[in-house]
Amino acid sequence: MKPRVTVLTLGVDDLERSLKFYRDGLGFSTQGIVGTEFEHGALVLFDLQHGLKLAIFPRSDLALDAKVPLAVRGATECTIGHYVRSRQEVDAVMEHAKQAGATITDPAHDRLWPIYSGYFQDPDGHLWEVVCDPRMEMEIID
Amino acid sequence: MKPRVTVLTLGVDDLERSLKFYRDGLGFSTQGIVGTEFEHGALVLFDLQHGLKLAIFPRSDLALDAKVPLAVRGATECTIGHYVRSRQEVDAVMEHAKQAGATITDPAHDRLWPIYSGYFQDPDGHLWEVVCDPRMEMEIID
Repeated sequence: MKPRVTVLTLGVDDLERSLKFYRDGLGFSTQGIVGTEFEHGALVLFDLQHGLKLAIFPRSDLALDAKVPLAVRGATECTIGHYVRSRQEVDAVMEHAKQAGATITDPAHDRLWPIYSGYFQDPDGHLWEVVCDPRMEMEIID
Repeated sequence: MKPRVTVLTLGVDDLERSLKFYRDGLGFSTQGIVGTEFEHGALVLFDLQHGLKLAIFPRSDLALDAKVPLAVRGATECTIGHYVRSRQEVDAVMEHAKQAGATITDPAHDRLWPIYSGYFQDPDGHLWEVVCDPRMEMEIID
């Protein structure tokens, strides 16, 4: 198995609400809701950097597709790290997310490791961490 | 905000157990546990395709860092899509994951959309979907 992730799919309660947050709020590019010709198939795909897409898919359909029980939302399953090149850019992205309706759980500040980062949650509680870490700058793809 | 994900961090109950699954079971490359010099800082980073890393981090430390309540595990927060180029490769990866100790929730089969895929769970219940979708072949990075 190659170490590769092609699509990260987030389980959501309301596809339209989540679409509005990611497309209109954060400005992510998408064709909108697709797959409506299939029962339990409607989802939204967003283009991230080459080789990776973000998808949103109803939690109930995800449970049905993967054959797992539908669970209540829980924020500690994962965080999605959005790395940027400067502390100013962290602050700008956090402000952008706030304007888009995100919940700020932890405003940006210096952490021990050391990095400068803050956390926000999307409408379903998924955590995004916005991070400036000079050691990771080579990993950032535009 | 650019549409970019640099690190996907999974919350886990037992860092050592999860490390064994991803490193020894699935064969993902890593330097092992790092950050132990910081209280609540120990984590593991795995190299995925260029521009993306997978991390595992204790759920309790993730809750502490993001300032959110620790939640019980729930499989419907997200799925991680691992795309491959053939149905045979889907079958091989599913078998590999099974040998590594993954829980198969849904063996590979044809789905309506149409794709050929199966789901497995890591030791913490995180869902991976192994997918062959010819429409996505251009997106696969080695």
